[in-house]
Amino acid sequence: FISESRVVRAPFKPNSLVLPVHKDTATGLHVANIRKSTPRVYVPFLVDLNGNFLWVVCDQNYSSSTYNAPFCHSTQCSRAGDHYCHKCHSAARPGCHNNTCAVMTINPLTRSYAVAELAQDLVSVQSIQGSNMAQIATVPNFLFACAPSSLLQGPFPKSVQGVAGLGHAPVALPLQLASHFGFPPQFSLCLSSSTNTSGGIFFGNAPFKLATGFDNISKSMAYTPLSIGPQAEYFILVKSIKINNKTVPFNTSLLSATRGFGGTLISTTTPYTVLEHSIFKTFASFFIQQFVGVPQVKSVPPFGLCFNSHNLPPTRVGGYPNIEFVMQNRNVSWTILGVDSLVNARPNVSCLAFVDGGLNPRASIVIGAYHLEDHLLHFDLSNSKVGYTSSLQSHPVNCANFNFTSALTLEEDTMRD
Amino acid sequence: FISESRVVRAPFKPNSLVLPVHKDTATGLHVANIRKSTPRVYVPFLVDLNGNFLWVVCDQNYSSSTYNAPFCHSTQCSRAGDHYCHKCHSAARPGCHNNTCAVMTINPLTRSYAVAELAQDLVSVQSIQGSNMAQIATVPNFLFACAPSSLLQGPFPKSVQGVAGLGHAPVALPLQLASHFGFPPQFSLCLSSSTNTSGGIFFGNAPFKLATGFDNISKSMAYTPLSIGPQAEYFILVKSIKINNKTVPFNTSLLSATRGFGGTLISTTTPYTVLEHSIFKTFASFFIQQFVGVPQVKSVPPFGLCFNSHNLPPTRVGGYPNIEFVMQNRNVSWTILGVDSLVNARPNVSCLAFVDGGLNPRASIVIGAYHLEDHLLHFDLSNSKVGYTSSLQSHPVNCANFNFTSALTLEEDTMRD
Repeated sequence: FISESRVVRAPFKPNSLVLPVHKDTATGLHVANIRKSTPRVYVPFLVDLNGNFLWVVCDQNYSSSTYNAPFCHSTQCSRAGDHYCHKCHSAARPGCHNNTCAVMTINPLTRSYAVAELAQDLVSVQSIQGSNMAQIATVPNFLFACAPSSLLQGPFPKSVQGVAGLGHAPVALPLQLASHFGFPPQFSLCLSSSTNTSGGIFFGNAPFKLATGFDNISKSMAYTPLSIGPQAEYFILVKSIKINNKTVPFNTSLLSATRGFGGTLISTTTPYTVLEHSIFKTFASFFIQQFVGVPQVKSVPPFGLCFNSHNLPPTRVGGYPNIEFVMQNRNVSWTILGVDSLVNARPNVSCLAFVDGGLNPRASIVIGAYHLEDHLLHFDLSNSKVGYTSSLQSHPVNCANFNFTSALTLEEDTMRD
Repeated sequence: FISESRVVRAPFKPNSLVLPVHKDTATGLHVANIRKSTPRVYVPFLVDLNGNFLWVVCDQNYSSSTYNAPFCHSTQCSRAGDHYCHKCHSAARPGCHNNTCAVMTINPLTRSYAVAELAQDLVSVQSIQGSNMAQIATVPNFLFACAPSSLLQGPFPKSVQGVAGLGHAPVALPLQLASHFGFPPQFSLCLSSSTNTSGGIFFGNAPFKLATGFDNISKSMAYTPLSIGPQAEYFILVKSIKINNKTVPFNTSLLSATRGFGGTLISTTTPYTVLEHSIFKTFASFFIQQFVGVPQVKSVPPFGLCFNSHNLPPTRVGGYPNIEFVMQNRNVSWTILGVDSLVNARPNVSCLAFVDGGLNPRASIVIGAYHLEDHLLHFDLSNSKVGYTSSLQSHPVNCANFNFTSALTLEEDTMRD
């Protein structure tokens, strides 16, 4: 398990990395293809904003000459946090060794748990320099969890092999990549609403300079404090919701911090924003009042409020109520443009893109993938805050527009210990 | 608590940092002066290889305009590991605020515990570039623990204000500095045996190129695997001990790994190497046999075997038995030169520099500060191994020789968020 350290004369320390992400048509969830193993393969992972690990199923065809399972009590196991010394007595294979570390991994869609082996293998991510794609940067010994295939049961996008966790946990992607390359622990989500083009997750400096037009956007980033939940999840404190600048008249105490956590969770594994039942009802009826002249039609699950598409105004700005999540500093709002407040549920039926979460959702508001799409979210983990831009859809550069030149045509890896 | 992130165009990412360390005459322990706070002050800290935090007493005169206590559930508290939401109801001052995080800190000399507030403040460390001292590198928001003065009771070097922890814990110095600046999680200890000149702790690349002569040393580094104990301490597995190339005939099973941890602890807060009682007895009598013609004198505590200094051979190589700790890979040994096997306990009395640890020491062998001095120890936390050089005392460049030019004459800080 022990390799010689090579002294690298000019260690490649990018300040930014980008992982292309595409939206899965069937589920509305987002998938990142991550390059790993030797020989290099691209493996599709479900993007889980609150996940604690990068985990991959590996009790079937996992084959890599650079796979390594750290011994129990090694520094690597210690970095991963809570773990058990695990012995697996079947024939040695990825996920099954004598005296390695077992960690608890979770399936974010079903919330069931399984024991997984802590492992290391090569992970490569594209770097960015200025406005351009640059070299592939490789972490030779990225810590991840090698899980049983039983953990992959559930409504996953077809062909994903695991989950890419972005939670505030020691070996989830953001902190591990930041520590390795020495950029500040920050990452930005720019998810695309289109299934044809990619969005991206940017690790390190926010991609304000990536392309023209982005520089303006940085000035419109609205930051709010971030709290970390007991399972490394990201919470914020939304104080009220406005539609067309008018405060939705539900009891905003529903959104308050309980036991220290802001009452709003952000999630990429929930397709649409979920509102606790009573908030939903007030929100939905207030929306109707602001959306004059558009008759309702029968709801299409999971949505609770739907309209006849033919009666919708043209999609250019105006005519659609804007929605604002007002943050704890009341000068700060996260705005969802009117057009993003609706989703095409079925031919001719457009629904309010919010789901009634019932009486016991995970949080009063769970901001779902749909409302993260075409926005830039900048998670600043040094300063415990998160920023949000206005929608990029109509903006010259948007999440679907990153020029992800094929990695293969770029100058090859610089391995860095 | 929230500051605006400034985009830094050319972040200063040194690959190496150095912290000067001097030996305290009275205690034989090692002290590092660390520059922190605003206005900048140098604060003396006891160097604790196994400590989980940088902690400082701050219920008396701690005054800094850049002091910050992260709010409970912030990302910073989450990074520090286990903590409690703490409210202190006295007047606000460093260490006492409403709704911050409390962590358990330990006094390594007495092994007593106290509750401390998790805090952030500026910490500056000198960087190294090639063979030269370079800019001061500053971490603006270094996470440390703000402790009560009651924790400082015990046989500390005079005037120390806290403890600099180098343990394998998330916010102790090595992992926090490595993550911030993006160098690999490694550090090297080069402690000086002289109280007149400084040794140093090097974070990042081992200082093989620091000065002439060091390049050769890198080739003689002997690496052995590292285990992390339940309190983030560093254990190695010593398999046997040799004196003058002959194996000391004690039961080497005494050194074996129990429950996964190698039986040998490395410590800077223990002045002399401690051997479990039965190992000590065998070792001491075997040493006598190898150290012919030097009559014993009455022991001087804490030592158990002493000699008349006048009868000692000249201190140049030869005449003194070499001591080798043979590691799990039997080709790898850590050698203590003959001259380092003795210490001047009193005028005319030189003693075997090993202490009888009784029947219940913290580990079978606790390698103490004395035997770390004038050796370079390289802790490679990426690969869970540690390397040791032969003694540097007679070598052209040694631990006492680093040219620590005054930080003030160098180009000033580059602040990096």
